[in-house]
Amino acid sequence: MPEADDFGAERQKLNDRQESRESCSVGIVEPKRVVFSDSLPLASGVSLRGFELAYETYGTLDADKSNAVLICHALNASHHVAGYYANAPDRIGWWDNMIGPGKSLDTERFFVVSVNNLGSCFGSSGPVSINPDTGKPWGADFPLVTVEDWVDAQARLADHLGIERWAAVMGGSLGGMQALCWSIRYPGRLRHALVIASTAKLSAENIAFNEVARQAILTDPDFFDGHYARKDTKPKRGLRIARMLGHITYLSDEQMEKRFGRQLREGLQFSFAPEFQIESYLRYQGEKFAGYFDANTYLRITKALDYFDPASAFDGDLTRALAAACCRFLVISFTTDWRFSPARSREIVRALIDNGHQVSYAEIAAPHGHDAFLLDDPEYHAVVRVYYDRMFAHEIASGETHE
Amino acid sequence: MPEADDFGAERQKLNDRQESRESCSVGIVEPKRVVFSDSLPLASGVSLRGFELAYETYGTLDADKSNAVLICHALNASHHVAGYYANAPDRIGWWDNMIGPGKSLDTERFFVVSVNNLGSCFGSSGPVSINPDTGKPWGADFPLVTVEDWVDAQARLADHLGIERWAAVMGGSLGGMQALCWSIRYPGRLRHALVIASTAKLSAENIAFNEVARQAILTDPDFFDGHYARKDTKPKRGLRIARMLGHITYLSDEQMEKRFGRQLREGLQFSFAPEFQIESYLRYQGEKFAGYFDANTYLRITKALDYFDPASAFDGDLTRALAAACCRFLVISFTTDWRFSPARSREIVRALIDNGHQVSYAEIAAPHGHDAFLLDDPEYHAVVRVYYDRMFAHEIASGETHE
Repeated sequence: MPEADDFGAERQKLNDRQESRESCSVGIVEPKRVVFSDSLPLASGVSLRGFELAYETYGTLDADKSNAVLICHALNASHHVAGYYANAPDRIGWWDNMIGPGKSLDTERFFVVSVNNLGSCFGSSGPVSINPDTGKPWGADFPLVTVEDWVDAQARLADHLGIERWAAVMGGSLGGMQALCWSIRYPGRLRHALVIASTAKLSAENIAFNEVARQAILTDPDFFDGHYARKDTKPKRGLRIARMLGHITYLSDEQMEKRFGRQLREGLQFSFAPEFQIESYLRYQGEKFAGYFDANTYLRITKALDYFDPASAFDGDLTRALAAACCRFLVISFTTDWRFSPARSREIVRALIDNGHQVSYAEIAAPHGHDAFLLDDPEYHAVVRVYYDRMFAHEIASGETHE
Repeated sequence: MPEADDFGAERQKLNDRQESRESCSVGIVEPKRVVFSDSLPLASGVSLRGFELAYETYGTLDADKSNAVLICHALNASHHVAGYYANAPDRIGWWDNMIGPGKSLDTERFFVVSVNNLGSCFGSSGPVSINPDTGKPWGADFPLVTVEDWVDAQARLADHLGIERWAAVMGGSLGGMQALCWSIRYPGRLRHALVIASTAKLSAENIAFNEVARQAILTDPDFFDGHYARKDTKPKRGLRIARMLGHITYLSDEQMEKRFGRQLREGLQFSFAPEFQIESYLRYQGEKFAGYFDANTYLRITKALDYFDPASAFDGDLTRALAAACCRFLVISFTTDWRFSPARSREIVRALIDNGHQVSYAEIAAPHGHDAFLLDDPEYHAVVRVYYDRMFAHEIASGETHE
């Protein structure tokens, strides 16, 4: 297994390869849908009577189905991870810099599956989809879901695709929680978990930020107890506030200072119009988000974040929680990430080591805060690239670890 | 001048004295008011046609008026700094642990003056006071004010009280900005500035948090462009969000974790009712704040915070901005304060040293984040106590530096 400090030697060669291909894309992609008619029992006790998942795939599943990688998304993302849509060439997947032919996760080697989470608003069953019992959108009636529920739904997708065991499950932030959850909940069904910019549980401060965002939505007069669709409106004010606040926690203080500092748009106005560049940036981000995201989804995804705590069933002992895992791990954190700081990743690494599990850990010096996991920092991408290269060479091309 | 590391010797003696008197209070106090009929030109270009200030005083002004200390308040506080009101014995001043007979700022030695800032909502002219031109509350028509405007108004109060030169001007957070501003704007009118948990300017992140809070208020349908009083309502939703968010930035991650962690109230409910203790704490704080604070005031005070940047008139060079200062300084920061971190205080200290000014700096190891400046951390209070003791011994009792 590669260690964080021995990636250097291979980096130049890899970067050379990357440069020659960096304009490569998986190209035109199409979202797919699958309907599951069996019910899905949720952590809340509610059972979902059938459900639908939206997903995309890139690359080719090999004959023995050993090269499949599942990508898990974070709060506001979707199954559209790489490539673009024929009718919308500007809609490029959110992790397109990471995934594609010749990229760190090379779609010429791996079959990549990305799925929209249950309860989200981009095609999978959730508040904006139709409740089969009523024929109308679920809205506020869609149950609260957990990371475990998402992973259970993803396991059904794996069954549907005939994938008994993922080569890897990979995600950043909340996506990393799903990768971690897979390793505990379905230990025999993945060979590697890539847990990036993540944590094994939210802190009080993390929950506090989520709660402020939720309160902004819940108290928006246009929320109507979550039944805003019936009123043909949206709690846009709340969504804007939630997103502005979220955005602050995604960026590092340092990067925000460098990018915006105290720059003014047109001098001081002595008014509440946006005066500083950072104000107009946040307002723009809030407005954009409120235009496309669903409030009931936002509420549910932040709750799933709050609830995730695999150690809670083991008296708070993460080591015991991870005892059942049997895959290998790559854990990555970013030095300026204050939402899920490197210390949180090190907690995971420590618990894995205490169990004797195989884990590589890279703490990337990056200025971009939590957002770094989405950016194409060369160090970070080289670590992921080497990890997959070795996985491919040792397990997939050689067929060594196939069961 | 005392240095941070030579306070130790005097601490025991002082603590002994403190223990014997720590139950002491300035006792019953009464707010005072003064009306200024001369107009006050503001930084915005607007001129305020006369204004009123609410203030309190504790202790006795000595014959040569050399023992007066001005206390400047932060965002949501007032002129009620010490003691309690006869008709409300529970309404204890916000810095009562610091100020009183035998306390760190000893009212048996010093004459303490505390003033409600212009534009606030506790008695001084501001959005909730009467606009003399209309006979109705100012509301949204009250002009935006700056730290410089506050200090100009405070200088009028000093004139009114016959105080040519303050022994000290002291404040925490936004109050510290006022102390710093005094040292630049009226260098001959103070002998000491005590700048606690403060900064010489907000960062992009600081402004960002303020902007989210403002947007929560400005977009509350009950805001009515700031004329909510005319509608007999208040933008309470916005105020709650603003306060919840502010509260997160006042506490340290570490302290929040220790105090609340992931403690639940009654197990997971799978609902949006408060489930974690931190959620119900924040909701309570938001509700309480929305009950007593004025939204137009909140907007104005956060703007004053954003605008403060004395170095901006000197190409961003704080050293040049502080060149005119001639008082002595005590700068204090707290290790876990991430709102205004120790690094921000060190910027001030460095600029003072570069000017050859006399400055003492103490970085207090305290777990409470920004809020630490309000708490009775013994190290912190001992530093302030020694500073005032020496000031009293060297300048006031001896009459040494009287002009």
